[in-house]
Amino acid sequence: MYKVSVGKKILSANEEYALKNSRFLSEHKKLCLNMISSPGSGKTTILARTITELKDKIKIGVIEGDIQTDIDAERIRATGAPAIQINTDGACHLSAAQVSGALEKLAVDDLDLIFIENVGNLVCPSAFELGENGKIVVLSVAEGDDKPAKYPAIFAKSKVLLINKIDLLEAIGQVDFDIKRVKADARKLNKGIEIFPISAKTGEGMADWYDWLKREVKNLRL
Amino acid sequence: MYKVSVGKKILSANEEYALKNSRFLSEHKKLCLNMISSPGSGKTTILARTITELKDKIKIGVIEGDIQTDIDAERIRATGAPAIQINTDGACHLSAAQVSGALEKLAVDDLDLIFIENVGNLVCPSAFELGENGKIVVLSVAEGDDKPAKYPAIFAKSKVLLINKIDLLEAIGQVDFDIKRVKADARKLNKGIEIFPISAKTGEGMADWYDWLKREVKNLRL
Repeated sequence: MYKVSVGKKILSANEEYALKNSRFLSEHKKLCLNMISSPGSGKTTILARTITELKDKIKIGVIEGDIQTDIDAERIRATGAPAIQINTDGACHLSAAQVSGALEKLAVDDLDLIFIENVGNLVCPSAFELGENGKIVVLSVAEGDDKPAKYPAIFAKSKVLLINKIDLLEAIGQVDFDIKRVKADARKLNKGIEIFPISAKTGEGMADWYDWLKREVKNLRL
Repeated sequence: MYKVSVGKKILSANEEYALKNSRFLSEHKKLCLNMISSPGSGKTTILARTITELKDKIKIGVIEGDIQTDIDAERIRATGAPAIQINTDGACHLSAAQVSGALEKLAVDDLDLIFIENVGNLVCPSAFELGENGKIVVLSVAEGDDKPAKYPAIFAKSKVLLINKIDLLEAIGQVDFDIKRVKADARKLNKGIEIFPISAKTGEGMADWYDWLKREVKNLRL
């Protein structure tokens, strides 16, 4: 039996589109972040507040992934930012081809930063590269402190962990959510991960997240 | 062109195993419920409290599905109930074949009711029948009241919706979680769905859920 070496990695259809998106973003010098979490961790609320509070400094557009409805895109548009809604009709993650189509519809020249809000799912979206510059994982304190241990893939792959809804910490109690455990478990999987405890509702902790975003946008412009 | 009717639906491998599990459960007259939710909605806490409080009335065993770790099975075993842990190693849902293997390991003759705690994921597990008698969907109030509209499949297919963590309602505020909207949206998808608002932490509302379980177990024994 002979082995034939074709000297080229054969890419999946998703990888082909991810590469295309990555080249497009790099040519246009745009930062693109892929936000992933369970349903209801607060992705849209984080984005709406971030867009509003950074309005004068960073121009943000959003690609919204949802199984059904355009509830999230409407919430983003209410801030004045452009949003393209993708409905996956049952599929559990966004594909790079869907993002490629959305990037064509978005007027990217007017933007500094494009957020992709993935389908609410802590598992599947982590396995599909979209051509983004980095992943942002969101964990709400109401979800419990064992999530990095139980769902390691997305914590291992993300640039930033946003621990959201810290305004609920008192009601939940430290016994049920030990923020130190989350930080330690996430760093065990991913030494360099940036961790920001925030409340997108009250605004607590958001300043550090904004500083990180400003630095990333600036680095890309250089 | 001729059409050939083979008079038999061709089943997928998962459906074959689901049918096998369903026959096994029916022959043994055991109730089996497949519990599905996002990560951190409180499935394991609900099960642990239910097992403890129904100990003298219903004998419960659990099949635990997790991507990694046996944290959940250990929490179940601490109540004294038998638990079989399945690690899916990255897969986003339990398969009927995995459940079939777990049913063989569980001493089902000693049990009245078998819970399957699926992988934390509101999307994918709804598409894989495991041979169960019914699905139980759990939604934590911290996840927001738009979830039935945004993730309709599992709400359309479930026998029961447990709205968990109602102890957090005050901290969250009615503006952010309107329980009436959740009930209306769920019933629009599924007219017959039973809805129990509960707190597995404080015990509030659990009595109605227990009564439903007792009725289901009794009906199966007749």
